[in-house]
Amino acid sequence: MADLLDRRRRVLGSASPLFYDRPLHLVRGEGVWLEDADGRRYLDVYNNVPHVGHCHPRVVAAMVGQAATLNIHTRYLHENVVAYAERLTATFDPPLDVAALCCTGTEANELAIRIARHATGHQGLIVSDFSYHGHSATLAGVTTGLPAPEAMADYARAIRIPDARLGDDGAASLAALDEAIASLAAGGHGVAALLVDTLFSTEGLVEPPEGWLAEATRRVRAAGGLLIADEVQPGFGRTGDHMWGYQAHGLVPDFVTMGKPMGNGHPLAGVVTTAALLEAFGRDALYFNTFGGTPVSSAIGLAVLDVIAEERLIENAREIGAYVQAGLAQLVDRHSFASRARGRGLFFGLDLVDPGDGTPAPAEARRVINRMREEGVLISRIGPNDNILKMRPPMPFGRDHADILLDTLDRVLGETR
Amino acid sequence: MADLLDRRRRVLGSASPLFYDRPLHLVRGEGVWLEDADGRRYLDVYNNVPHVGHCHPRVVAAMVGQAATLNIHTRYLHENVVAYAERLTATFDPPLDVAALCCTGTEANELAIRIARHATGHQGLIVSDFSYHGHSATLAGVTTGLPAPEAMADYARAIRIPDARLGDDGAASLAALDEAIASLAAGGHGVAALLVDTLFSTEGLVEPPEGWLAEATRRVRAAGGLLIADEVQPGFGRTGDHMWGYQAHGLVPDFVTMGKPMGNGHPLAGVVTTAALLEAFGRDALYFNTFGGTPVSSAIGLAVLDVIAEERLIENAREIGAYVQAGLAQLVDRHSFASRARGRGLFFGLDLVDPGDGTPAPAEARRVINRMREEGVLISRIGPNDNILKMRPPMPFGRDHADILLDTLDRVLGETR
Repeated sequence: MADLLDRRRRVLGSASPLFYDRPLHLVRGEGVWLEDADGRRYLDVYNNVPHVGHCHPRVVAAMVGQAATLNIHTRYLHENVVAYAERLTATFDPPLDVAALCCTGTEANELAIRIARHATGHQGLIVSDFSYHGHSATLAGVTTGLPAPEAMADYARAIRIPDARLGDDGAASLAALDEAIASLAAGGHGVAALLVDTLFSTEGLVEPPEGWLAEATRRVRAAGGLLIADEVQPGFGRTGDHMWGYQAHGLVPDFVTMGKPMGNGHPLAGVVTTAALLEAFGRDALYFNTFGGTPVSSAIGLAVLDVIAEERLIENAREIGAYVQAGLAQLVDRHSFASRARGRGLFFGLDLVDPGDGTPAPAEARRVINRMREEGVLISRIGPNDNILKMRPPMPFGRDHADILLDTLDRVLGETR
Repeated sequence: MADLLDRRRRVLGSASPLFYDRPLHLVRGEGVWLEDADGRRYLDVYNNVPHVGHCHPRVVAAMVGQAATLNIHTRYLHENVVAYAERLTATFDPPLDVAALCCTGTEANELAIRIARHATGHQGLIVSDFSYHGHSATLAGVTTGLPAPEAMADYARAIRIPDARLGDDGAASLAALDEAIASLAAGGHGVAALLVDTLFSTEGLVEPPEGWLAEATRRVRAAGGLLIADEVQPGFGRTGDHMWGYQAHGLVPDFVTMGKPMGNGHPLAGVVTTAALLEAFGRDALYFNTFGGTPVSSAIGLAVLDVIAEERLIENAREIGAYVQAGLAQLVDRHSFASRARGRGLFFGLDLVDPGDGTPAPAEARRVINRMREEGVLISRIGPNDNILKMRPPMPFGRDHADILLDTLDRVLGETR
């Protein structure tokens, strides 16, 4: 493994990120399980990309059958892309009724921003103050939740997402939003869009007061802007309540962008928006995405939707999510470092804080993550203080898997430091 | 087909581009052949994405075997991504020795631009005056060869690529480059990079005087800028002379970006650069691409490199390319509308001009393309006047295929109008 690590550093550079103090060398995946080069199995409580489970046979079969038959761009007619776009758009609320397919969440957010700017005639973007929406130059200019060498762009403003569980009623954040809108107007940028992850994952699974995002959207629209809901994290039923994260907020966005879970690991992403917005953009722009919506990508996308429905994965996310939340609440009672359970459906967090003064405990979070890996359970961490355990397994995560997670976490949290 | 077209317009919008006055409904592909829903076969002289041939069994087998075993991001160690990056970087000249893998040519150019800006401290980009490098907001701001609603960015300048075959010695273009550099400096942007397709495909396969690009690069570097060679078109042996298009210009770029042919249809792309540039960027930025260099993408990339070598596809491109050029020269002699054959390796062009006054003949080009499609041969067109036939088949294009192309073109060009 040391040799592989050396070779990797030589050709990918030392900045290419790796998980864990002792990186994992994986060779196999199946369902919610991963296996390393020594034959050891790990329970995957981190990866949302293999949404319906690692190497799901149904998805692999769809890929294989189509890749051996035809794989080509969408400037020729093909049944798959049409069938997939129909199935996908049918899961949204009106007036969201058209799809533009691309390859990554970055590309999806880029396209939504281009359409929003075209439609509004404005350039400004408002994001949350600890967020990540992709790795292009434009998105680096609105990145607040990761290291990026680019300065915050002159057309970008960031606001804090209020945490209702800390008693925040959201009024200050709405006032900050008003200020951001006024400042963008004063700068000559105007507001093109508010761009948010509707689950506020990078922020640490923050839950704003009920109705807060709808009110923020109302204010952005009143200023001529639009709402881009980045559903890369909550989409495809992750939250257990709905197919899409925005549906928990009592609103309908102008754009929904999606990526990671969409193709179960295959580079498939997209924007769903209204026909009016897409048609107007298309009159002035020739947008073409070579690998977007190919017969192979569309076959995979269809298989993922089939598995979500047939294996009742949204119901599973609701049921198991509630079970894990109850278990995490018990861990909060039992362990002094664990202060709060968070999350929705199969995306859960656990705040670790110093038992003495209640301040964030990132060193303890790091210790727990690395110890969990040694114990065969893969998790990570999120939030501005890097102290919130991030647990977001593939969707076929069952009660037995939840028990392994909770038992191992209980043991690791209880270790003498 | 009318029904499929209607359904498509309803869910993808009417702006999603389709080829030909009568769109093609394709269902199968193999080698250099495509088949439509009525069982009719077409010789594919357009598609460079299925670089080693449609549905190449070796590439499909590599995809299938890995997709059924493990498909995951690169924050865990895996042999495939390291082996692929080693094989890929070995095809470049020093000091190009590291790779960053992503999913599309757009993402590759975005990353190269971010690294170039970080390294130089400049923002300015210089491109050619009829070019296309991707569909993100930043790249739309430097797009000169396609409709884009975005204005040319304030940090962007465009220069004309001199055509040596029209007697241009390149001096005026170098003077324009100097002006662009001075203007970017005066605007406070400076020059971060010159970004060019080393085959100048969108421009219409323009051939600058020998040494012109090396001299342009020298001037850009003297101003503190870098060279990004966009090898999405010429790369992977397309030109028949070299593996990479830049190698025909007697220079080594700072970045090579690649996409389309790299994964034979699978969304695989990348940037090859120097360790120094990538490491410096990595110290300030956390760049991570979820689907970039997965075990599946890397297995596919390796299979493509294997097939290129084992089937001697670069040699084939040189040999058949020369054969087609000779045939096109005969067509120029025989047909009044055909004025000049262009190209290199398996990328050829044919200028169509009005026989009376020698002006570009885009209507004739459109007629020829659509008639060729009816005759079972797929081609397209390029250039600022839309009058240059664009012919760029999968690489296993043989002499028999070339004869079909040339005979059909001869017949269609000879038709009474």
